[in-house]
Amino acid sequence: MNGAQALLQTLADAGVEVCFTNPGTSEMHFVAALDTEPRMRAVLALFEGVATGAADGYARMAGKPAATLLHLGCGLGNGLANLHNARKGKVPVVNIVGDHATYHTRYDAQLQSDIETVARNVSPGFVRTAQSTAALGRDAADAIAAARGLPGQVATLILPADVSWGEGGQPCPPPPPPTPAAASDEAVQAAAQAIRSGEKTIVLLGGHALREGALRTAARIAAHSGAQLLAEVFPTRMERGAGLPAVERVAYLAELAGVQLAGARHLVLVDAKSPVSFFAYPGKASDLVPEGCTVHTLCSPAQDAAASLDKLAAALGATAEPPLAPARRPERPRGPLTAPKVCKAVGHLLPENAIVIDEAITSGLMLGAMTAGCPRHDLLTLTGGAIGQGLPNAVGAAIACPDRPVLALIGDGTAMYTIQALWTMAREKLHVVSVIFNNASYSVLNVELERVGADEAGSKAKSQLDLKGPVLNFAQLAQGMGVHAVRARTAEDFCQALEYALAQPGPHLIEALVPEALSGARRRVLPWLLRSLPGLPQPVARALKRRIAP
Amino acid sequence: MNGAQALLQTLADAGVEVCFTNPGTSEMHFVAALDTEPRMRAVLALFEGVATGAADGYARMAGKPAATLLHLGCGLGNGLANLHNARKGKVPVVNIVGDHATYHTRYDAQLQSDIETVARNVSPGFVRTAQSTAALGRDAADAIAAARGLPGQVATLILPADVSWGEGGQPCPPPPPPTPAAASDEAVQAAAQAIRSGEKTIVLLGGHALREGALRTAARIAAHSGAQLLAEVFPTRMERGAGLPAVERVAYLAELAGVQLAGARHLVLVDAKSPVSFFAYPGKASDLVPEGCTVHTLCSPAQDAAASLDKLAAALGATAEPPLAPARRPERPRGPLTAPKVCKAVGHLLPENAIVIDEAITSGLMLGAMTAGCPRHDLLTLTGGAIGQGLPNAVGAAIACPDRPVLALIGDGTAMYTIQALWTMAREKLHVVSVIFNNASYSVLNVELERVGADEAGSKAKSQLDLKGPVLNFAQLAQGMGVHAVRARTAEDFCQALEYALAQPGPHLIEALVPEALSGARRRVLPWLLRSLPGLPQPVARALKRRIAP
Repeated sequence: MNGAQALLQTLADAGVEVCFTNPGTSEMHFVAALDTEPRMRAVLALFEGVATGAADGYARMAGKPAATLLHLGCGLGNGLANLHNARKGKVPVVNIVGDHATYHTRYDAQLQSDIETVARNVSPGFVRTAQSTAALGRDAADAIAAARGLPGQVATLILPADVSWGEGGQPCPPPPPPTPAAASDEAVQAAAQAIRSGEKTIVLLGGHALREGALRTAARIAAHSGAQLLAEVFPTRMERGAGLPAVERVAYLAELAGVQLAGARHLVLVDAKSPVSFFAYPGKASDLVPEGCTVHTLCSPAQDAAASLDKLAAALGATAEPPLAPARRPERPRGPLTAPKVCKAVGHLLPENAIVIDEAITSGLMLGAMTAGCPRHDLLTLTGGAIGQGLPNAVGAAIACPDRPVLALIGDGTAMYTIQALWTMAREKLHVVSVIFNNASYSVLNVELERVGADEAGSKAKSQLDLKGPVLNFAQLAQGMGVHAVRARTAEDFCQALEYALAQPGPHLIEALVPEALSGARRRVLPWLLRSLPGLPQPVARALKRRIAP
Repeated sequence: MNGAQALLQTLADAGVEVCFTNPGTSEMHFVAALDTEPRMRAVLALFEGVATGAADGYARMAGKPAATLLHLGCGLGNGLANLHNARKGKVPVVNIVGDHATYHTRYDAQLQSDIETVARNVSPGFVRTAQSTAALGRDAADAIAAARGLPGQVATLILPADVSWGEGGQPCPPPPPPTPAAASDEAVQAAAQAIRSGEKTIVLLGGHALREGALRTAARIAAHSGAQLLAEVFPTRMERGAGLPAVERVAYLAELAGVQLAGARHLVLVDAKSPVSFFAYPGKASDLVPEGCTVHTLCSPAQDAAASLDKLAAALGATAEPPLAPARRPERPRGPLTAPKVCKAVGHLLPENAIVIDEAITSGLMLGAMTAGCPRHDLLTLTGGAIGQGLPNAVGAAIACPDRPVLALIGDGTAMYTIQALWTMAREKLHVVSVIFNNASYSVLNVELERVGADEAGSKAKSQLDLKGPVLNFAQLAQGMGVHAVRARTAEDFCQALEYALAQPGPHLIEALVPEALSGARRRVLPWLLRSLPGLPQPVARALKRRIAP
C-alpha cells in the first residue's frame, strides 16, 4: 500500500468521504489511489477557490470535514480566500496540499514556493508537511483530529509527492471525536447575575449557538428574563424560519449595529466574538460595545454552546416556552424587478427544508425580513468577508445534503470571483438554484466610498465601482458551463423562473436584472436603512437618524 | 494632500502609470485619489489573479512596472499565483495591498489576516507595511526601486487605510534607475575557456539574454565557436522570428531535455538557472545537468546580460554574422481541426510585430516550430508554472503595447483559472485574440499520470483529468463577458476566424474544438515527441527512444 492509499483509507475510516480537488502532477498518485477507496467521492473543481469554498459549505451542512486536494503553493494561494472564510467561520476542513518530492525542493523548480508559510495564515493551529510514507496515516489522523476539534479549523497537511508514492503506507485508526465542555459554573453565574440585574442585557449568539437546540434554550432565557437576543453579523450556519425563535442579526453597518447595541449594560457572549466594525472609518470607533457595557463570556467557541445555555437556563429557572416565528410569507411580487422584489419572491416561494446561501451584499438586504416566516431553513453567510464564497458553498452544501434544495443568492461582483463553481454544479448534477443580482455595480463600494469620507469621487474613481461596459450576462456564463439559465426583468418572470428551477432537479441560474438597491447618496441610503428594519421603534429610528444623517 | 494622493504622484513621477485594480472598502481613498493624478490609468479586474497577471504581462512588454491594488490578505491570496509567476520570471511589479486602518487590526475583524507573511512568499526581497502618511511617498519610492532593480521582483507595499486617508502626504522623487554591471573578467575568461576547449559546450540563455541585442551576440558567439545555444524552458520574454537568431528552448519533458543536453561538458549560464526537471518523477533525476558537465555562470540575473555577452564575444573575437531564421510560413491548414493545425494556422497568419502568449500546454507543442519563420514577434510563457497566467498576461501586454496585436493561445483547463480576464479585455477594448484549445481535458495530466508511474488509472482517477460532462463552451463564456467569440471545428473555419479577428480592433475569442494532442498511452506520446523536434538527428532520436520507450 502506498502513502496515498493509506491516506485515503485513514480519511474514509474517520468519515471524511468527500474530497474537493484541483490536482496537478504532484498529486497524481493521490488521484490514482482514489479508485482503491470506494468510500471516497472526488469532486473536481476548475479553480481551487471553488474546491476550498465547497469544502467549507460541505462541512457547515454535514457537520464533519471534507478534504481538499490542491496543487502546491499556487493552488493553495488560489484556495486561500475561501479557506480564510472557513477559518473565520470555525469550519473544519482537512486541507491537503500536494508538494514536490522531498528531494526535489532544493532545486527551486518553477512551482517551488514556501507552502507552510502561506498555509499558516489560514491554518494557524495545524500545518504539517508529511515526512515519511510510514507516518502519513498518523499525520492524516492528526489533521482530522485538529480540523474537527472545537472550534473547528482548517488543518493543512502538505503531501510531498514521494511520500505519496512511496510504499509502506499504514492507515491510522480514526481519532476520537471531540468532547467539548459546557461553560464553567463561574461563567454561568456571572451571566445569570447580569441577566437578573434588571439592566439592559444582550445575549449575543454565534457559532453553534445558532442551531435549533441552543436557539430554543436561548429564546427561553430571553422570554423568562427580558434579556434581548442578537445573532452574530455573519453566521456560519443559522437555523431559522417558522416555528423557530426569530433572532435578529447584528447589522453589517456599524451605524446600525450601534443602534441595536445602544444602552446595553451587559453583553453575554455565547460562542460569539465581541462585536467590532467590519472596517475602520475615519473618526468612528472600531469597537461596537457601548460605553459602560460589561462583556461576559458564557462560553467560547471551544466549548459546548448548547450545554452552556442549558446550564444558564437551569440557573435562571427559565422553563417557559418562548415565542416562535409565525408561519408567514410575503405576497407574490409584481412589476419591474428590483432587489427587494427578488427577496420577496424568495420569501413567497422558499420550499421546505431549504439551504439558503446569502452572498448578495446590498441586493440581499431584505432577505432576512422576507424569509423570517418561511418554512424552516438553514442560512449560510459570508463569515470571513472574502467574497466569492457563495457559489462554492452551494456546491458543498448540495453534496452534503443531496435531498435538500439549495438556493444561493449572490451579487454580480461577488459571483465573478468563483464563477467556475457553476461547472461543478453541472457536472455533479446538484440541485442548486443560483440567483445572481445583476445591478452592474460593486454597489456596496459606492456606499463605502461615501462612508470612508471619500465623497467627491471623480469619474475614474466611479469607474472602479461600476461593472458596466460591458454588462455581464450571467445566463450566458452559466450556459457556457452547462447550467440551465434565464434572465428575468420582471417580478412575474422571476417568480416563474424560480418555481421552475425549484421543481426541476439539477442546477439552475436565474439572473435578476435589477437597479442598485442602494445609491451612493447618503440621503437615499438613510430612508432605505429605516425601511430595512420593519417595526423599528420610533425612538430607535430617531437615534439612528441622528447618528447617520449628514 | 492625503497619503493616497502622495502615493499616486510618487508612482506617476517614477513612470508607473498603470494600476490594475480590484479594490474594496479599505482601498476607497486610493480609488478616490485616482482622479487627482491624470497620469495614472486604472484598469479594473473582476478577480485579483487577473490584476496581478496583467501587471506581469504589462511589465514584460513595457519594461517597467505597473502597480496593482488588492484588497487585504484575501485579495492578495487570489492574486498570489500570478505574482508567483512574476517572481519566477523576475518581472517588476509594485504590488499594493490595502489593509485595515492600523488601529483596527487589533480587533481581528472578519477580513483580518497576516498579509505580510503571505506576501513574503512572492516578495521575498521587499515587503513593507506603511506606518505613516508622511513616510508613504518614501515607502512607495523604495518599493519602485526594489521592483525595478535587477533582477526585477514583486515589491509589496501594504497600505493601511488610515495611512492612505491621513493628511500630510509627501510625494517622493523617483529613485534612480538600476545600473547593472557586466560579467566579471574572471567569469568571461572561464566561459571563453570552456567554449574554446573544443569540448561540447552549451550556452543557456535566459531572462534578458533572450532579447534581440543579446540574442544576436550569443548567436555570433555560437557561429564563431561551435558552441550550441539553448533558451530556458519558460522564457519571460523571448524575441524570435524571421531575421533573428533561432534558439531552441529546453524541453518541458525532462526526458527530452536530457537528450538536448546529452554529452555537454560545459554549460554556460547567461541570466539563466541551471536546468532542473519541472516535477520529480520516481526513479528519475531532478538535476538535468549531465554527469561530467561543468556549469559556468557568465552572468546572474542581477547583471547585464547583453553587456556580459558583448564582453564574451570580444574575448573570443566573435565578429562574424550568425545565421538568422529565414522568413518561412507553414501552409494554410485544411480539414478537421486539430491542435497542430491551429498552430499551423497561427504560423500561416501571424501578423507583423505580434505579441504571442503561449499557455496552451499540450495543445501548443507545435507552436514554436510553426512560428519560427514568422515575422518577428515576442513570446511570453508560463514562467512559474501556476496556470491561469495567459489571459491576464494578454491584458497587460495589450495595455503596454496598444499598437501591437496580441495573440493568446490558451488551454481549456488553464483558461478557466482566470477567465474573468475576458471582461477586462472587453471593457478596455484591447486588441487581443484569445485562442482556447478545447479538448475537454487536463490533457497534460494524462501524460503526467503515466509519467509518475501511476499507470493503472481507474475511472475515478480518469474523471479527475477530464473536463467533459459538461464540455465547456468558451464562446458563450466570452460572449457573456462582452467579447466577440466563435467556435471552430475545421481548419478552414479557424483560419477565417483568425483573419477576421486580427483585422477587427477589439477583443476576440476563437474556441478551437480539437482532440487531445497527446493521449495517455506512452506508445502514442513517443512518436509525437519525435515528430515535435523537426530535423532531430537520427542518433538523438534513437537515444530518445531508448530513454522513454517502455
